[in-house]
Amino acid sequence: MMLERGLVFMSDTRTNAGLDDISTFRKMAIWETPGDRSITLMAAGNLATTQAVVSLLDERSKSPGDRAPSLLGVPSMFQAARMVADTLKEVIAQHADTGQRADSTFNATLILGGQIKGGPHRLFLIYPEGNFIEAGRDTPFFQIGETKYGRPILVRAYDPKMSFQAAMKLLLVSFDSTLKANLTVGAPFDFHCYEADSLCTGQTGRVAGDDPYFLSISQGWGQALREALDMLPDFKLGKDPSDA
Amino acid sequence: MMLERGLVFMSDTRTNAGLDDISTFRKMAIWETPGDRSITLMAAGNLATTQAVVSLLDERSKSPGDRAPSLLGVPSMFQAARMVADTLKEVIAQHADTGQRADSTFNATLILGGQIKGGPHRLFLIYPEGNFIEAGRDTPFFQIGETKYGRPILVRAYDPKMSFQAAMKLLLVSFDSTLKANLTVGAPFDFHCYEADSLCTGQTGRVAGDDPYFLSISQGWGQALREALDMLPDFKLGKDPSDA
Repeated sequence: MMLERGLVFMSDTRTNAGLDDISTFRKMAIWETPGDRSITLMAAGNLATTQAVVSLLDERSKSPGDRAPSLLGVPSMFQAARMVADTLKEVIAQHADTGQRADSTFNATLILGGQIKGGPHRLFLIYPEGNFIEAGRDTPFFQIGETKYGRPILVRAYDPKMSFQAAMKLLLVSFDSTLKANLTVGAPFDFHCYEADSLCTGQTGRVAGDDPYFLSISQGWGQALREALDMLPDFKLGKDPSDA
Repeated sequence: MMLERGLVFMSDTRTNAGLDDISTFRKMAIWETPGDRSITLMAAGNLATTQAVVSLLDERSKSPGDRAPSLLGVPSMFQAARMVADTLKEVIAQHADTGQRADSTFNATLILGGQIKGGPHRLFLIYPEGNFIEAGRDTPFFQIGETKYGRPILVRAYDPKMSFQAAMKLLLVSFDSTLKANLTVGAPFDFHCYEADSLCTGQTGRVAGDDPYFLSISQGWGQALREALDMLPDFKLGKDPSDA
């Protein structure tokens, strides 16, 4: 999510190979050179694909001697998005070549955001085809994976001026709605709040499913929703004998 | 939606054959014999299929002499659901036979609810395969079509004791969330409030997209959501310089 004061990233940690085979994996990766750049990547889709992408990007960034460009070397966030997109496309192509026919099985979608010295903080959504779009005023946040259940509250409550604390609350409420509806989304949630122009990784952490704050939000939100609905005027039916 | 005091049905009216080809069709049909039964059917999916199903059920109910059973003749809501399910399966099979290979193209899903003298009011979800499930205490409402965006508020705010007026408000809020996210869902909305044991059609009507009440709900709900979120405590970050 893109805010005036920075970027807020949140990802769940559940992966599944069927309803009877779920596990917990980190879906967020961060690369930084303090004082120069901080880049965060979140992934949804085929785990083998997304892990391969992260590993490839990681290896490159750790072998500066290598001729291959690295996330720690690219001059701009746009170039970073390009590199990540190419890597994603490449990995998917490799998997698709080795046997399985091209369908969505190996696909993955990525969210990349951060800031590189000399440029603003930017946020990108990267498609499996290797192309990508950037968040702007009209679309200031991206969702990947199971996006629908949690979207209405984001659309309604997002405010570019909101604090990191309020943004974290909003994202947890959004995830909570999804959690209640889709078993393939699960706590804990990893987060990173990147402060604009800090050029270094900001606050990161993990919110557990039994975290007291998360539980209070989850319960409080249900109550708050019911109260909000009660505040709205009821629909007027011509006559409703059952309400005599 | 199943309430203690009856059933509330609501359907949108938008159909599409691609984003550039949308139109308005009624997706709700009602059969009744006052004093004996009132049966409501709502449809989602292939319009040709659902219209064929309704027409077939209609013809049968209008030719009592016909040996084929009719919705106005069946002894119970379970038998009604069975008849509708068989009709749906039959129509899909016919379409599938005539050329196109079996995929979801001709599929449709139905919600059937009502009451027949001697039995309680019941609510069924009918699948394209011709089988169906019934709403109970644990799952007191069904959604078909684009179900995800509007689900969280239903799950959170549903109350079996709620009035028809409150239920209508809840359903309009739920539809509004979907409306804002999916172009294939659109006003006006048809509704029917069936009062338990009345054994006749209750209040029916259509809520237009520019209906003052609907507009006030739509705007009021956004505001109410933001206020509800504000009421919840913010997430505590160790330190957030940007909030100095």
